[in-house]
Amino acid sequence: MSGKIRVVEVGPRDGLQNEKKVLDSPTRIELIRKLAETGLKRIEIGAFVSPQWVPQMAGTLDLAREILRLQKTGLINPDIQLSALVPNARGMEDALKSGLTEVAIFGACSETFSKKNINCSIAESFVRFRQVLEMAKYHKIKVRGYLSTAFGCPYEGRVAESRVVRLVRAMVKMGVYEVSVGDTIGVATPRQVISLIKKLKRVAKPRQMAMHFHDTRGTSLANVCASLELGIRTFDSSVGGLGGCPYAKGASGNLASEDLVYLLKGMGYETGVDLEKLIQIKRWAEEKLGRELPSRVGKAGAWNVE
Amino acid sequence: MSGKIRVVEVGPRDGLQNEKKVLDSPTRIELIRKLAETGLKRIEIGAFVSPQWVPQMAGTLDLAREILRLQKTGLINPDIQLSALVPNARGMEDALKSGLTEVAIFGACSETFSKKNINCSIAESFVRFRQVLEMAKYHKIKVRGYLSTAFGCPYEGRVAESRVVRLVRAMVKMGVYEVSVGDTIGVATPRQVISLIKKLKRVAKPRQMAMHFHDTRGTSLANVCASLELGIRTFDSSVGGLGGCPYAKGASGNLASEDLVYLLKGMGYETGVDLEKLIQIKRWAEEKLGRELPSRVGKAGAWNVE
Repeated sequence: MSGKIRVVEVGPRDGLQNEKKVLDSPTRIELIRKLAETGLKRIEIGAFVSPQWVPQMAGTLDLAREILRLQKTGLINPDIQLSALVPNARGMEDALKSGLTEVAIFGACSETFSKKNINCSIAESFVRFRQVLEMAKYHKIKVRGYLSTAFGCPYEGRVAESRVVRLVRAMVKMGVYEVSVGDTIGVATPRQVISLIKKLKRVAKPRQMAMHFHDTRGTSLANVCASLELGIRTFDSSVGGLGGCPYAKGASGNLASEDLVYLLKGMGYETGVDLEKLIQIKRWAEEKLGRELPSRVGKAGAWNVE
Repeated sequence: MSGKIRVVEVGPRDGLQNEKKVLDSPTRIELIRKLAETGLKRIEIGAFVSPQWVPQMAGTLDLAREILRLQKTGLINPDIQLSALVPNARGMEDALKSGLTEVAIFGACSETFSKKNINCSIAESFVRFRQVLEMAKYHKIKVRGYLSTAFGCPYEGRVAESRVVRLVRAMVKMGVYEVSVGDTIGVATPRQVISLIKKLKRVAKPRQMAMHFHDTRGTSLANVCASLELGIRTFDSSVGGLGGCPYAKGASGNLASEDLVYLLKGMGYETGVDLEKLIQIKRWAEEKLGRELPSRVGKAGAWNVE
């Protein structure tokens, strides 16, 4: 089993999108540039969504163009795979204009969450995804899929494993190269994680799956360990734990990249990511956002021994 | 393998001892009474140490007597095993006066930590422990042993497994019924935990071991899961994560009892502990201490579904 782990940094998108304070484009670009210098190989940089709905992601088209320009000139490592969220064909048009070679679609495993979060039923969302995927295929763009609320929904409670399996299979069949399975409200424990992944392996290969944990109840690193045991090698995280949890006031949201990288390093896995640089970015982001971020390693330090 | 887990609540001792704000005895008694109503079966209530060294633990003799009086009258569940820390024969005399039937001794796996924390070398500490154990044996008192800095020391860095094994064996031979192996500065990951416990099982039975994790770097629940796999069934925690980390300013210390109980419940283990009551105590303690406690489940809620 490979000891190499792919860390997908979602701070500039999933993180900032859930921060109350809106950062301007130059600051977002600075964040992405800093992240690009840590050794991270995959970064989600923004979302092609309406600025009226999500003001935090306003100007993603110009931001993406600028980031790609920097990458072309070598100021950002050309090996880094950059991606952005597209909710529909309209967003995909912007993604195509930007020149990005990867996009992500975002769905939910709970009907109520889907309606409240992306304003349509699950079936309707898959119609939109199909349009995006057709456009992507034509333009040779890679598509990542998100399936949120895979373990629990803030409105519906527990989510049936069979539904998650069905939706993962549907996304894979549609042509998504990787599905990020999300514990959006951070309720899973390793027992649920193991049970679900075992079933998901019937419809997708481990390399087609990423796990996206939230540290809302402190269980995310335990869930990462459970996933590792089942062969999962791709994990989403956000620097500093950017993002918070909109469903539990003041609680942690995204697993912090520092905490993830610290764990993986301690367990002998390779991430290629410089932990100290991540911690510095966390501190920088705290200044920009004017709030303390929840990352534990960011606060305690990396404990550099040996 | 048994699905029953023993949670040892160390908040009133290890937790409060590391809080800046000193709580008076009536408040400490109230905390212990509240904890006794959650279903917890083991609570460490204080320490027979000099109030000049540790003002947070002043008056533990009177406090212990009052708690035992309440237990005799049935106001505290008589099934709860109460304990207190004793650093030496002098402390043990107080413990005997109190009427407690269990005490705990506290040592370290690192020489520098031992000197800075309990003001003597490891060898000297074991001479003191021997005196305590002789007195305890004579009076039929159970003795628990703590071995701190079992994974890392804030002064010396990594700690050799062989040393931890040697010290656990020494404590068990001495007559300690259980050794609590502590990751005092919260640096361990499951890989180290598994490696150490495998070696410790050569010198102690799983039921003679407890694991004492700190959530300083977010790894404590992952470490609990690793320990569970190796048959460990006893874990220390403090309500709310009381205690902080004196070696990393502002960082988390003790694993929060709520986070531990949430994980165990989610994984199908029995603790007998009422999670909602723990969360209420966490909120109450925050008011008394005037600071936010780091427990994640305490902040996000228990997510009561099913």
